[in-house]
Amino acid sequence: MSTSSSIDEREEGLSFQPKFDASGLLTCVATDAATGELLMVAHMNEEALRRTIDSGDAWYFSRSRNALWRKGETSGHVQRVIEMRMDCDQDAVWIKVEQRGAACHTGRRSCFYRKVEAAEGGPRLAFVDAERLFDPKAVYEK
Amino acid sequence: MSTSSSIDEREEGLSFQPKFDASGLLTCVATDAATGELLMVAHMNEEALRRTIDSGDAWYFSRSRNALWRKGETSGHVQRVIEMRMDCDQDAVWIKVEQRGAACHTGRRSCFYRKVEAAEGGPRLAFVDAERLFDPKAVYEK
Repeated sequence: MSTSSSIDEREEGLSFQPKFDASGLLTCVATDAATGELLMVAHMNEEALRRTIDSGDAWYFSRSRNALWRKGETSGHVQRVIEMRMDCDQDAVWIKVEQRGAACHTGRRSCFYRKVEAAEGGPRLAFVDAERLFDPKAVYEK
Repeated sequence: MSTSSSIDEREEGLSFQPKFDASGLLTCVATDAATGELLMVAHMNEEALRRTIDSGDAWYFSRSRNALWRKGETSGHVQRVIEMRMDCDQDAVWIKVEQRGAACHTGRRSCFYRKVEAAEGGPRLAFVDAERLFDPKAVYEK
């Protein structure tokens, strides 16, 4: 099969051909299935992707801990997958989820609780939607 | 500064400290500022991030072409950035954009035009929201 027809099949076909990067990972974007809110960006390896599809719960691969990880396994803040989509070249996956509690390990609903603002001397951050739903110390260090 | 206080500053502080990966890249998620629709997932290197902030137009770094790239420079389908947010550990950026035309090089509004469905013999894809807004051959091969 030529490179061109491989690309056509991956982009226009209906076969599931996830394209993992050199580290064996896909990028995964999770949004709230009810509100559309962007909750988090993380990574899946082949095993995390398979377990997510098979179980309906979101599994990820942590690059910092080099470990497979079921979202919510420590905090209880699991993600139930309502729909999964692949992007054009199948190197990114989008899951629409029912998020129990908070998606972010800092205790916020979403990981994106700071916006970038222009300032003298370079960009600065400002909190937005940064209310905590839980205390991470109480959840992760008990 | 200890590792712990570095993490605290990156996650809880207001200084802009983008964390590029080993390839010098951040993950960027672009959504439609008006509808919240997920348009695309791509990457930014330091230069693409700087140009995006300075110009208000989305710039990316293409891993396949190994090149800096202003979104829409060939197709005219530019992205005007309305808001930019960083995630907790500052290795992902979310831009809410005004998308002219289509975000996807295949001619669709969003890159996520196929959903994953369970099937005998493994997952399959199905088209959803897959209408083309332009003919990629007419745009990219002229």
